[in-house]
Amino acid sequence: MMHKCKIGIIGFGTVGKGVFKILNTKKDNHPILKEIEIIKIAVKDINKKRDIQVNKDLLTDDIDSVIKDPRIDVIVEVMGGIDIAKDIIIKSLNAGKSVVTANKAVMARFGYEIYKIAWKNNVYILFEAAVCGGIPVIEPLKKSLKSNQITKMIGIINGTTNFILSKMSSENSSYEGSLQIAQDLGYAESDPSADVEGHDAADKISILTEIAFGGKIKRNEIETEGINFINLKDIDYASKLGFEIKLIALSERINNDSSDSLPLNTWVGPTLIPKGHPLASVEDVNNAILIKGDPLGEIMLYGPGAGSGPTASSVVSDILNLKSISFTNNKKGLSTFDPLLAFDFWRKCHLIESAQIRKKFYFRLICQDTPGVIGKIGHIFGTNSVSIESIVQFDATDNEAEIVVITHEVTKGNIEKSKTELNSLTEVKLIASQLNCI
Amino acid sequence: MMHKCKIGIIGFGTVGKGVFKILNTKKDNHPILKEIEIIKIAVKDINKKRDIQVNKDLLTDDIDSVIKDPRIDVIVEVMGGIDIAKDIIIKSLNAGKSVVTANKAVMARFGYEIYKIAWKNNVYILFEAAVCGGIPVIEPLKKSLKSNQITKMIGIINGTTNFILSKMSSENSSYEGSLQIAQDLGYAESDPSADVEGHDAADKISILTEIAFGGKIKRNEIETEGINFINLKDIDYASKLGFEIKLIALSERINNDSSDSLPLNTWVGPTLIPKGHPLASVEDVNNAILIKGDPLGEIMLYGPGAGSGPTASSVVSDILNLKSISFTNNKKGLSTFDPLLAFDFWRKCHLIESAQIRKKFYFRLICQDTPGVIGKIGHIFGTNSVSIESIVQFDATDNEAEIVVITHEVTKGNIEKSKTELNSLTEVKLIASQLNCI
Repeated sequence: MMHKCKIGIIGFGTVGKGVFKILNTKKDNHPILKEIEIIKIAVKDINKKRDIQVNKDLLTDDIDSVIKDPRIDVIVEVMGGIDIAKDIIIKSLNAGKSVVTANKAVMARFGYEIYKIAWKNNVYILFEAAVCGGIPVIEPLKKSLKSNQITKMIGIINGTTNFILSKMSSENSSYEGSLQIAQDLGYAESDPSADVEGHDAADKISILTEIAFGGKIKRNEIETEGINFINLKDIDYASKLGFEIKLIALSERINNDSSDSLPLNTWVGPTLIPKGHPLASVEDVNNAILIKGDPLGEIMLYGPGAGSGPTASSVVSDILNLKSISFTNNKKGLSTFDPLLAFDFWRKCHLIESAQIRKKFYFRLICQDTPGVIGKIGHIFGTNSVSIESIVQFDATDNEAEIVVITHEVTKGNIEKSKTELNSLTEVKLIASQLNCI
Repeated sequence: MMHKCKIGIIGFGTVGKGVFKILNTKKDNHPILKEIEIIKIAVKDINKKRDIQVNKDLLTDDIDSVIKDPRIDVIVEVMGGIDIAKDIIIKSLNAGKSVVTANKAVMARFGYEIYKIAWKNNVYILFEAAVCGGIPVIEPLKKSLKSNQITKMIGIINGTTNFILSKMSSENSSYEGSLQIAQDLGYAESDPSADVEGHDAADKISILTEIAFGGKIKRNEIETEGINFINLKDIDYASKLGFEIKLIALSERINNDSSDSLPLNTWVGPTLIPKGHPLASVEDVNNAILIKGDPLGEIMLYGPGAGSGPTASSVVSDILNLKSISFTNNKKGLSTFDPLLAFDFWRKCHLIESAQIRKKFYFRLICQDTPGVIGKIGHIFGTNSVSIESIVQFDATDNEAEIVVITHEVTKGNIEKSKTELNSLTEVKLIASQLNCI
């Protein structure tokens, strides 16, 4: 007879309730689910009316009593937020309990510290639900793909922005209108800035980057642009040129034998993707990530990026992982400890400076409709070593023309120099948009 | 200091050499790879000239000496074949060694027996490489998705046939010509029957079905059709109607509360897929599988389905899994044993009878070009309770017309009755093709 895994849940919102439902399902799931027992659930208000039937004896408003409960093996932190959640995670690890969390903001900012504390206490911190909802991506990067050298990851890892961009593209609906629909459907929060400004995607690519490449990076150094300034014109022009616009998170290793720290090119931003690219057809709140490894080649993991069911599925997977391998042994020392699942950094990494980032760019310029303007624009890019893939003029009216420039892969430094010169050109009224291309 | 994982490799073909390369890479992979040591490699001919540099002391032609070597913790069976490979796997497990294999034929036929033997000996049988090459799919089904009730799997899981069908579709190249190209590129064997007749895909869906649904099934009961009779006309007509033709493997649970054994609908066959479906754009030797779970929703795993690098990546992942969690403890009994990774059946399952399988069908009929023929065909289907989605006439010449019928979802039994009546109709010269639709 195996030892039951006894858990305490902290927070009982969408994800917490989803976990409760899986563990109390009447469906004929794998019998190991019956080996997980909820001992306590910490909530703000015990007497709040809930749309789910829960034995009141399980509820408490005293978080510390859950962390300290000697019966509990695993703390499930699904309350969200940053500072308090971080404290709860660290306290729980120091109390000798493994922790499962869906908290990307905490793991992106304090992963290094938290991994160390977990390791020191011979317990685990697992967080499959923090990135890409129900898609297994943390586990593959920690374990299944560890036989590879990961070279590049590129993904759509924020469902809210993908929903908004899908709406804008398929229904020619404005950014504001599409955001409103997302809010009405519960896909965007009333303050949507974490999603639409790209910070949520930056949290996630930060976590993935550290796990895939094995070194600590500085979360606040990730160059991050959101979708809140995307114009329907850009979506229209991109489409005419054969592209979809998606909020992309990218992270890749840059080979540099001379450094003892691995340089990484990591960024988040709205990006033109060729319509035939596998990421171009990822619609609505779905997520997808392409992972390139040597000798593996390229795989793609695709699925629902958010929602109660998918997120809870990942949380329970982590609990099952703990149930099936570890916590019965974790007092015996590291030799009974899964070092890949536990995760520790194995090298130094650093993000390259913004000016050194190499990528393809898209510009929309509002210009005077005079002869020679395309030549002048081309000349400026050329003198700054920016090679151009295409220049196309759209919508000439009232002495005004819109000119779209797509460059080859160039450094951001050379782009900035070009922009300064473009801005001083009389014929260029405005650099209306700047986006990335892959 | 952790115990090194010492392995013996049996077979040194494409996959074996791929494993050797990963374990001897000069790249800055995760340091845990250095903790895996190859003790012996069993080959047929020690003195054979090889395109890879190997210390001759590692080689032996005595398989038993590898299995019995007390230094070796894990046997890596990558020799292929069925009977001898099965014996080696069982002998190794009985000798107290965990086994990693890429052998889908053995696991599809003898999985039940082998899981039991591994479990009895407190060792593991891992086989990520047996299905979908480098894509992690066995691990997710065994562990990461175990919080879900899996309801359906549908995939392109044979790279050779996908390459041939991609060639036929994109270059209007005949089946025979496309097969020849696949053979020239090393994607198809000189005797291609296991691939083109669907047996390889049936092996793989058999393995996935047992792991996802938790019960033993009878491999030889899986209804299996290949692509060797696919005509360019079918690809052309399908395309005109908005479909791609792919070799699909499908397995789904059928809810049936009255039985203590879960009924499963499982088959392999050439199938029309709407062009917008995520599987329709899987090209060349790539594989992809959609997995539907409750409460997860649908995820897709996509990537290279074969080849030395991807397959070796999965083999080494399995070795790492053993290294990181288990073999240091496996003498202590089941409590230190990962029951999900080890895998055991937890319920009864059975395949439903062929006549009960429900799906959509595509027919190409060669008919006399006489008035009323479409009406007569429609009448026959109708009287046999086969509801029709579309009937389209193509290519009427010389008193002959080709008529394509696509049905709604119906039982195979009703289809067989309809076919008997169609064959007795004077106007129907030939039922030239019968394919599946999703």
